[in-house]
Amino acid sequence: MSEHRSLDAAIAWIDATAASLDREDVPLITARGRVLAEAIHAGGAIPGENRAALDGFAVLASACSGASSYNPIRLPLIEVAPGDVLPASTDAVVPLQLAESDDQAHIEIVEAVAAGDNVEQQGAIAAIGMTLVLAGTRVAARHIGLLRVAGRSGVSVVCRPRVRILITNPSKGGAPQDSNGWMIRAAAERDGGVIGECIAIDRGKMAIRAALAEADTDITLVIGGTGPGSDDYSAAAPAVAGELVIHGVALRPGETTGLGTVSGAPVVLLPGAPASCLWAYELFAGRAIRRLGGRAAELPCRSREMIAARKIVSSLGTTEICPVRFGAGDAVEPLPSFAETGLMAAVGADGFVIVPQGSEGHPQGARMTVYLYDEC
Amino acid sequence: MSEHRSLDAAIAWIDATAASLDREDVPLITARGRVLAEAIHAGGAIPGENRAALDGFAVLASACSGASSYNPIRLPLIEVAPGDVLPASTDAVVPLQLAESDDQAHIEIVEAVAAGDNVEQQGAIAAIGMTLVLAGTRVAARHIGLLRVAGRSGVSVVCRPRVRILITNPSKGGAPQDSNGWMIRAAAERDGGVIGECIAIDRGKMAIRAALAEADTDITLVIGGTGPGSDDYSAAAPAVAGELVIHGVALRPGETTGLGTVSGAPVVLLPGAPASCLWAYELFAGRAIRRLGGRAAELPCRSREMIAARKIVSSLGTTEICPVRFGAGDAVEPLPSFAETGLMAAVGADGFVIVPQGSEGHPQGARMTVYLYDEC
Repeated sequence: MSEHRSLDAAIAWIDATAASLDREDVPLITARGRVLAEAIHAGGAIPGENRAALDGFAVLASACSGASSYNPIRLPLIEVAPGDVLPASTDAVVPLQLAESDDQAHIEIVEAVAAGDNVEQQGAIAAIGMTLVLAGTRVAARHIGLLRVAGRSGVSVVCRPRVRILITNPSKGGAPQDSNGWMIRAAAERDGGVIGECIAIDRGKMAIRAALAEADTDITLVIGGTGPGSDDYSAAAPAVAGELVIHGVALRPGETTGLGTVSGAPVVLLPGAPASCLWAYELFAGRAIRRLGGRAAELPCRSREMIAARKIVSSLGTTEICPVRFGAGDAVEPLPSFAETGLMAAVGADGFVIVPQGSEGHPQGARMTVYLYDEC
Repeated sequence: MSEHRSLDAAIAWIDATAASLDREDVPLITARGRVLAEAIHAGGAIPGENRAALDGFAVLASACSGASSYNPIRLPLIEVAPGDVLPASTDAVVPLQLAESDDQAHIEIVEAVAAGDNVEQQGAIAAIGMTLVLAGTRVAARHIGLLRVAGRSGVSVVCRPRVRILITNPSKGGAPQDSNGWMIRAAAERDGGVIGECIAIDRGKMAIRAALAEADTDITLVIGGTGPGSDDYSAAAPAVAGELVIHGVALRPGETTGLGTVSGAPVVLLPGAPASCLWAYELFAGRAIRRLGGRAAELPCRSREMIAARKIVSSLGTTEICPVRFGAGDAVEPLPSFAETGLMAAVGADGFVIVPQGSEGHPQGARMTVYLYDEC
């Protein structure tokens, strides 16, 4: 096995290797969560016409001039609701409660109005050609509403990355062999990936090489067999030999992670130990999937500045992920490490701290960035 | 129309009306994003047996006593990978690189080992009966991994709320009539709702009443027709009369929002103006859907303490949603209001500030909570 590379070097390789995929056109109604591949401009003014801004009666302002309760002016009844295009020969709206209708065909106006009163003017929301939504925007409900108001029924978005998951290291009589696969599948879906295949394959080098060769996919994740075992056990690494760029990252958990390419598409070798598998996914595979899909590369977690209530210990020379629990106020307490309690450290924690390679941890009272385990 | 109620009163009504739905069993592999209806305890110790913690050879420690390079001890080769159950009559693992294998059937040990060395002990992750995941947890990839390790293949989760959307106020010749429907549909899906139906219906009282009556749904959203118009235009309100509890909230945008029930299920009347529709959804309908599905009730947005770079103006007596743009550092600048630019205020903004009813806004330099428009 080659020397361990730094976390930063491994991340730089991911960023250089995984770029935004091609675009595809999708119906706007299904576009929530997708990433716009192009800026969208207003094809016409919004609104395209003057519109009523409230419930009332459309009038021509000049016809109401001089109206008062002593001099009511009788006009044809033209009822409008908010959003209605102002009928021809009208330029203002009299609120419902300020006019009387006696015969269902006419109203009496008792107060003068100015042209434009209670009217949403053509172009008030956007002038023609104005940028409505920027390229790279992750589409939310409000974008769908605005783009539909602008007359769009489809948008061009970055394709969702196709993810292939190969599970090569079923342990002998241990945990259900599919636990890593189920976990990584869910994480890849969270990051916008589409799982093309999630299969168990033989742990032998030839089987892995054959499975990698047939890949028509945007990224392949190989789970297990990354360790320093004999050829049979670390088969995943030699199977991508020649294109294996990094094998071993100074990261705990996750130090046997491997990174390479097959036919130009990234391959991430994830360790078989569950916590190592998860973290190698989060920092490398997930980042690649997010980048391929045009999303922000960073961990999809909130983060906050918090204070170490007790010393947080980490090994010098290795970036270490340390699970923490929230205390009172801004305080965080370290929890037993991933090495001790595996995935329980991820499930029982409120968040985690990433202690860089050059640090031995955070002393009590230190301020540091804590990532929150709420939505991620 | 009745008097406007405060935002707090309307939210209190939602919280009293929308409680967590029943539970259902789903396959664990599909459970990401769902809310656990019960705590999950370890059915057995995790791991269930002593396991190899790294690549190496399983040995009985007592058989290696006295081993050194001068006194190598020859043992049968029993190769193990991380996660493998320790074979019978072995209690330690010698790392691969610390033993030599000459004939593929035996190894030579040159260093003593202690029982338990490089072994993940039975129960190290969780003792039998230990709580693995709390009820109410939103299932993420790491929970799926741990629960699968614990042998689970299914979980009991809160049912997803069935949402029915009735669009009653197609404006005359204005924006595409379905824009509010598309927007609200996407927002309801974000909040975990399942859209059972999203249909346009006649704006007349009888049509709305008929549509409401046939509802087999957990919540109904009626879009449009909430304004102070004549019977035809404000048909949604009388159509739920008797069960309409609140009509009019001191909230801008969204002041004509209505809240009621039909057959015990909440009905939210959303104004037809797009920005009002969106905000009435976010604060009331979305909250109800999140609560029905067992999620946290709060707006699903990050928030941060930031500083007003300029005065943020709001009307006394009404809670007002003010769009803002980020400036340098922690500063935020007010943007043109929702009243002026409709949904553009939501799409062009970096976030928003909720100015309470009793306040006229925030003076320059004031510290306040800003909600971020990133994922919501």
